[in-house]
Amino acid sequence: MQETGYPYSVEFAVRDYECDIQGVVNNANYQHYLEHARHEFLISKGISFAKLHEEGLDLIVTRVDIEYKYPLKSSDRFLVTVIVQREGNIRIVFLQDIFRLPDMKPVVRARVTGAAIKNGKPFYPAEVIKKLGLE
Amino acid sequence: MQETGYPYSVEFAVRDYECDIQGVVNNANYQHYLEHARHEFLISKGISFAKLHEEGLDLIVTRVDIEYKYPLKSSDRFLVTVIVQREGNIRIVFLQDIFRLPDMKPVVRARVTGAAIKNGKPFYPAEVIKKLGLE
Amino acid sequence: MQETGYPYSVEFAVRDYECDIQGVVNNANYQHYLEHARHEFLISKGISFAKLHEEGLDLIVTRVDIEYKYPLKSSDRFLVTVIVQREGNIRIVFLQDIFRLPDMKPVVRARVTGAAIKNGKPFYPAEVIKKLGLE
Amino acid sequence: MQETGYPYSVEFAVRDYECDIQGVVNNANYQHYLEHARHEFLISKGISFAKLHEEGLDLIVTRVDIEYKYPLKSSDRFLVTVIVQREGNIRIVFLQDIFRLPDMKPVVRARVTGAAIKNGKPFYPAEVIKKLGLE
Repeated sequence: MQETGYPYSVEFAVRDYECDIQGVVNNANYQHYLEHARHEFLISKGISFAKLHEEGLDLIVTRVDIEYKYPLKSSDRFLVTVIVQREGNIRIVFLQDIFRLPDMKPVVRARVTGAAIKNGKPFYPAEVIKKLGLE
Repeated sequence: MQETGYPYSVEFAVRDYECDIQGVVNNANYQHYLEHARHEFLISKGISFAKLHEEGLDLIVTRVDIEYKYPLKSSDRFLVTVIVQREGNIRIVFLQDIFRLPDMKPVVRARVTGAAIKNGKPFYPAEVIKKLGLE
Repeated sequence: MQETGYPYSVEFAVRDYECDIQGVVNNANYQHYLEHARHEFLISKGISFAKLHEEGLDLIVTRVDIEYKYPLKSSDRFLVTVIVQREGNIRIVFLQDIFRLPDMKPVVRARVTGAAIKNGKPFYPAEVIKKLGLE
Repeated sequence: MQETGYPYSVEFAVRDYECDIQGVVNNANYQHYLEHARHEFLISKGISFAKLHEEGLDLIVTRVDIEYKYPLKSSDRFLVTVIVQREGNIRIVFLQDIFRLPDMKPVVRARVTGAAIKNGKPFYPAEVIKKLGLE
C-alpha cells in the first residue's frame, strides 16, 4: 500500500466488466468502490456490516454527494480513502476520495452520510460509534 | 407481449449500463436477465423467491449452461422465455431462450438447473413442485 | 403509465439481483435506474447516448447528489422522473425523483449534473441543447 | 499468492454489494470473477482485451458451463484459476475453478469457450494464439 497521508485507504484495480460503452468505469460503479472501501474500513475497526444485519442493526446510507473529476479506464489501479466524522447525534459522515495510481490524479471526491436503523427505526449505534472512536 | 408459442416470456429492453467496452451487453448480464425472468415466472405461479428465503427455504442454481449466439446492443428489446421441467427427484430444470425483438433473432440459449435447500441442506420443496405443476 | 404531473417518467420493477444482503435495493443500483431514465428521456428527445459516443461526443456526469428516503424491496414497482435544466453555459442539470408505486412514496431525490466532452475536451453540445429545448 | 499447483490464479475477496437477498454471492457475479481472472491471465501473456477491441478485434465468449458447488459469503477470500486449451481451429477453451481460501473448498467449476471476431466476422487470431502458446 502506498503511503498516502490518509488514515485509511484500500487499493483496487478496474475490472473490464465495470467499464461501459464509453470505455470508462460506469458512474454507479464508483459507488460500489466507495461502499467496499467503507465496509473494509469498518471491518478494520471490528465492525461487520453483514453481521450487524444478522443482529437486526442496519447501517444505511441516507445521502451521497459525488464529484466526478476524471474517469478510470480498463486496468487502472486506484486508491479509495476513508475519513469518518460524526455529524450531530445520529449521523456519521464518510469523506472519501478516489485517486488513480501511481500518479494520484484525483478521480472522485465523495461525501457519504450514514445512519443506523434497528427494526426499521432510527437507532443510536453506541457500540459502532465507540469502535469508530467518535464518542 | 408478443405471441411467441412459449408458455411464459418476459419482455426487456437493454439498459446502457449493461453494455461493456465492446458496446454489447456484458455476458454476465444475460444471467441477470435469465434470473429475473425465472423469478417473474415463479411469481406468476404464486412462488416468491424473496419470501421463500425469509421462511428459510432457498431455491438455488446448481448449474448453468449458456450458449451465446448473437449479442444485444444499446436499446435492443428482447424476450426471455421460460420452460420448466423436473429432473430426477430433487432437481428442477429451466430451459430458457432469449430472442431479440421484433425479429426473434436467437441471442442466448440456456439450461439452468436448480434445487432447494432448507437450513443449508437439500430439501424436497413439495409446495413449489406442486405450484409448478411438476408433481 | 401513471399520471404524475411530471413531464417525463419511466416505470420500473425491482429485480431480485438488484437487492443486497439487507434485502433492499443496493444504493448504487438507484444510480443505474436514474441513468436509464435519463437515457430513455434523451431518446424521447431524439438523442442517443450510444450513438453520440460513436460520433466522438460523450455526455458525462460531473456530479450526483442523491438523498435516500425510503428503500425499495423485491418486486416493488416504481417511477423515475426526469426534469432537465440548464446551468450556466456548459452544464445540464437533471432533477430526478424516484417514487414507489402505487402509493407514490418518495424513495430517492437526486440532482445529476452533466456536461459534454469531445475528444476529451469540454464542448458546447449545441444540437443536444436545442433538442432539449434549453436554448 | 497461495501455491496452488495451477499455472495461473488470481485472488479476490467478496465485496458486500456482490451478495444478494440470500446473503451469498449472486450467481451472475461468479461470471464477473471468471471474466476478470481471464482478462488478467491474458494481460499476463501480453494480451489486452480492451486494446484488442480498439484495434477492431473482439474476443468473445460463445458458451459457458458453470457448476455451482458451494456459495461464497461476505468477506470470503477466494482463488480463481485459469487453464487455457485450444479446441479445433478457432475455439479457445478456458477451464476455470474457484476455490474458497484458505481451505480450498471448491466453489465453482467452469468451462468457458471463446472465439475471436473481426469486424463482426469469425477470425483466426494468430497473434493471440501464439502469445497463449497454443500454436
